[in-house]
Amino acid sequence: MKIDGKHYRTIWATEDGRVEIIDQERLPHDFVIVEVASLDEMIVAIKDMKVRGAPLIGASAAYGMAITLSEDGSDENLAEASRKLYEARPTAVNLRWALEKVNETVKGLDPAERGAAAFALAAEICDDDVAACEQIGVHGCEIIAEIAEKKGATADSPVNVLTHCNAGWLATVDWGTALAPIYKAHDAGIPVHVWVDETRPRNQGAFLTAYELASHGVPHTVIVDNAGGHLMQHDMVDLCLVGSDRTTGTGDVCNKIGTYLKALAASDNGVPFYGCVPSSTVDWTISDGIAEIPIEQRSDEEVRVIPGVLENGDVSEIKLFSEASPTRNDAFDVTPARLVTGIITERGVADASRESLGGLFPEQANS
Amino acid sequence: MKIDGKHYRTIWATEDGRVEIIDQERLPHDFVIVEVASLDEMIVAIKDMKVRGAPLIGASAAYGMAITLSEDGSDENLAEASRKLYEARPTAVNLRWALEKVNETVKGLDPAERGAAAFALAAEICDDDVAACEQIGVHGCEIIAEIAEKKGATADSPVNVLTHCNAGWLATVDWGTALAPIYKAHDAGIPVHVWVDETRPRNQGAFLTAYELASHGVPHTVIVDNAGGHLMQHDMVDLCLVGSDRTTGTGDVCNKIGTYLKALAASDNGVPFYGCVPSSTVDWTISDGIAEIPIEQRSDEEVRVIPGVLENGDVSEIKLFSEASPTRNDAFDVTPARLVTGIITERGVADASRESLGGLFPEQANS
Repeated sequence: MKIDGKHYRTIWATEDGRVEIIDQERLPHDFVIVEVASLDEMIVAIKDMKVRGAPLIGASAAYGMAITLSEDGSDENLAEASRKLYEARPTAVNLRWALEKVNETVKGLDPAERGAAAFALAAEICDDDVAACEQIGVHGCEIIAEIAEKKGATADSPVNVLTHCNAGWLATVDWGTALAPIYKAHDAGIPVHVWVDETRPRNQGAFLTAYELASHGVPHTVIVDNAGGHLMQHDMVDLCLVGSDRTTGTGDVCNKIGTYLKALAASDNGVPFYGCVPSSTVDWTISDGIAEIPIEQRSDEEVRVIPGVLENGDVSEIKLFSEASPTRNDAFDVTPARLVTGIITERGVADASRESLGGLFPEQANS
Repeated sequence: MKIDGKHYRTIWATEDGRVEIIDQERLPHDFVIVEVASLDEMIVAIKDMKVRGAPLIGASAAYGMAITLSEDGSDENLAEASRKLYEARPTAVNLRWALEKVNETVKGLDPAERGAAAFALAAEICDDDVAACEQIGVHGCEIIAEIAEKKGATADSPVNVLTHCNAGWLATVDWGTALAPIYKAHDAGIPVHVWVDETRPRNQGAFLTAYELASHGVPHTVIVDNAGGHLMQHDMVDLCLVGSDRTTGTGDVCNKIGTYLKALAASDNGVPFYGCVPSSTVDWTISDGIAEIPIEQRSDEEVRVIPGVLENGDVSEIKLFSEASPTRNDAFDVTPARLVTGIITERGVADASRESLGGLFPEQANS
């Protein structure tokens, strides 16, 4: 998507083989491109969420492997680097998926060839992700178009979509997952307005989703995470679209903490609630998301301290409350399939069930 | 309750008739007592939330009337001041209740006597509120004690209570509503731990509830508002206790925005959910909270800008996101009675129904 009229992806390799990313930790206050020059730098980028969002984490892991295998293509380094990257963010299944792809691709090769092969694979993962996200956009846009027609949507009475966290193009390589249908609808002239959950503690909604939507010109309103239920009670939400860090083959959607609360409210008020999920985010090996998906615990500081802009324009951080009060910081929660209207994938919309989801991806579901 | 070993109420009249409050806008970073010298200053204190919480707003309104009637006891000023105060915060029913009490008390009096009568009434309202809150503490503590016994609570496995916003002594004259049972339980030696929702946008949980609990030595953990559902899914919450700004006679609980989401999660996970409500907060005149309670819209700035402490120790504010993204800021939501396990009042615990609640307060329900 575009920033100031120029098209960007979130990660890419330059012609001379350097890997560059948009440093998302500094958005929206600064737009900075940084090089990631080593495996360790990529691990830091993933842990510190300079790159974040399940699809982008997968692509980043592939590039991290490519960088380190170019320096040392040995079996030892392949195993060690895979392990280190895998531990960087335990919840996003795309990380595991990308590492498995790299391992499958390079294991039969001569160590000296592994770096180049991994670079080629990383580029392919990126292109595939872009294509998958665009298709999610196409299929999700049909749902928005249907609602628009039913309500007779106009600029004054648009389709109101609530989203949580950032599942836009910044969470993927391009297009996004939950925001792809919104971009497609907006570009097609369907009147759409987005309720952007600020998404504490890291405020990826207010910081990234709002930034993306403002950059693209999509009407939106930032709300606190507490507000969505009230808006649904008063018929001000037509549709919920969220991304996912891992979705079980049975349709349990693991996503940013607080997603489950919105799904409960959607269910209570008859608002359709969809997970927007490329198949690389589906974990076919498990069936009970609440019991089986490991939930990453993040630092105290993320809850206690928040970045922003001071009155004098300086970017800074502010401490919200005293160390006398401890915190707990679970990064994700799991929305059980019973609360999910459907899963929007690159091959179409499935019910949140193994039968329906596996029907779209039989080669994956049965492998 | 105590701050640094000294007992305070949140509002009081000095011996020479000046009204003083703890300026809650500056907590927890500064503890400052300020005089409220005029009706207009009291309206500002209520609007800016220097005093907040339904019971304290009621007491503050009574003192506001006392101050202005001492200067001008005319019928015109009585009507005009009542109207102005009533408009300061539209959702809290205690405001209306206190203004009606003042009007009933002074209307038959000579204008010159009205100020003194209103001062006496305001003091009585404060004493009654303290007594009511303490009784809510007694009745709510029985519920905590029962859970403690059932789970065999210990310091390592305490009764985990989740609360939203601040319904502690700072929201009342003393004791609090939702926190009163917690103080009673803690003081009685029952192991209790509190999950404190930070409660965006104004963070009264992280700023006030955490401050109260830390001051009193009650174990607690600050969490983002997004976290409670996940904690309930994993059996880490035994009980939800919340305050209310207005509760219908039928048991719909209007409280800080986001309360409804926690009630949904509590219901979905079999966690008991109680509103802690002095009878002055019950609005017997309405029966459908979602349709009939006016929800206050507050400023854009509350969502966009947040106060805290800079690294150099200065208290400051930080802007979270750009004016390119508008906001919407509903202050409250309504939890329908079907999600409420019970209402803890000064006369005991009622079901969330007119029959049960009215049974405890027949003289109010039938008036």
